[in-house]
Amino acid sequence: MKGKKFVVATSRKIERRDVTEPVQKAVESLGIQSGFVLVSVPHTTAAVSVGENWDPDVGTDVERALAKWTPSVPFEHGEGNSAAHFLSEAIGNSRVLAVEGGKLRLGRWQGVFLLELDGPRERSVFVDPLAAAGKGA
Amino acid sequence: MKGKKFVVATSRKIERRDVTEPVQKAVESLGIQSGFVLVSVPHTTAAVSVGENWDPDVGTDVERALAKWTPSVPFEHGEGNSAAHFLSEAIGNSRVLAVEGGKLRLGRWQGVFLLELDGPRERSVFVDPLAAAGKGA
Amino acid sequence: MKGKKFVVATSRKIERRDVTEPVQKAVESLGIQSGFVLVSVPHTTAAVSVGENWDPDVGTDVERALAKWTPSVPFEHGEGNSAAHFLSEAIGNSRVLAVEGGKLRLGRWQGVFLLELDGPRERSVFVDPLAAAGKGA
Repeated sequence: MKGKKFVVATSRKIERRDVTEPVQKAVESLGIQSGFVLVSVPHTTAAVSVGENWDPDVGTDVERALAKWTPSVPFEHGEGNSAAHFLSEAIGNSRVLAVEGGKLRLGRWQGVFLLELDGPRERSVFVDPLAAAGKGA
Repeated sequence: MKGKKFVVATSRKIERRDVTEPVQKAVESLGIQSGFVLVSVPHTTAAVSVGENWDPDVGTDVERALAKWTPSVPFEHGEGNSAAHFLSEAIGNSRVLAVEGGKLRLGRWQGVFLLELDGPRERSVFVDPLAAAGKGA
Repeated sequence: MKGKKFVVATSRKIERRDVTEPVQKAVESLGIQSGFVLVSVPHTTAAVSVGENWDPDVGTDVERALAKWTPSVPFEHGEGNSAAHFLSEAIGNSRVLAVEGGKLRLGRWQGVFLLELDGPRERSVFVDPLAAAGKGA
């Protein structure tokens, strides 16, 4: 299993970044014609999602909703980013995507997003071709 | 990777539709005895989930909670369905399911659901056998 | 597809239990060197997540947020655990994880969690090596 990694430098506290193009480039660079990829982040204050990528206003709306979604409860964690940890965990750090004819098989309005929840930071995104679990190296 | 697709016509704005049976039929039609399938929708105002499918009241409860879950923030997107885009993205447009002995391996109380978030609409559900990512066609 | 199962006895109503070690042990026991595993629960009032596992305060914070996350709506389901069904379904009963060199490939701060949402109960966690969907037994 040889995957690809790319880095995204986010610029805001909460930022929904369209990464459809770099994910597609990784698929091409890996030479995948057909199958599935796991798109994931190794972070605990970011998430990966699939959503609407046509109207930029949807991105604004998603960011606003994310900023208010975590319930107001007393948090113990000292870094002040408990809401980011919470949403990262609930939304998920990965998505599985199908590839057909060398292209991500997305719906007409779908894109792939990195959800920055505690930026700005440098984030890594992994694109790994799904493969059967093996006993070899 | 040859998958199956089926269409569901939803009838309400927010509707939790049990699709366990058509997903199981797709598994049989694909001849899968063992392995995994990705159940997904190409839509940005619907989601796929796994949940309780014994008591119909749970469906009602899930629909009510979904209707109130998105925070009250000012939305910019002009179509008035930003809450649907938001929940579709956060919950996810797909789930991975195991197949054993030709059957979806679900827990005793589990079913597979299409979550309509901006209906009524015609929705497509894809059932794809997971396969190793390949360089061939 | 031969997977492993382990059992976790939770002790509280809402409990975020670190299961990284038993999942890693399952990976080793299965002899997986490289590939992917599906970590899942067959339950409808529990979930599987990936999140921060360094500061125990994050676990407390996640539990508090989970307890307040479900909207206050009238529920019909008679067992009084509709919020648990709702969150289980929205967060998801599974996650896909990469394995490299015989180890779960987690970020520096990431762990794997069983989210108990209606405990205390005995919970089963499945760890299945992803494999191509096959027509054989």
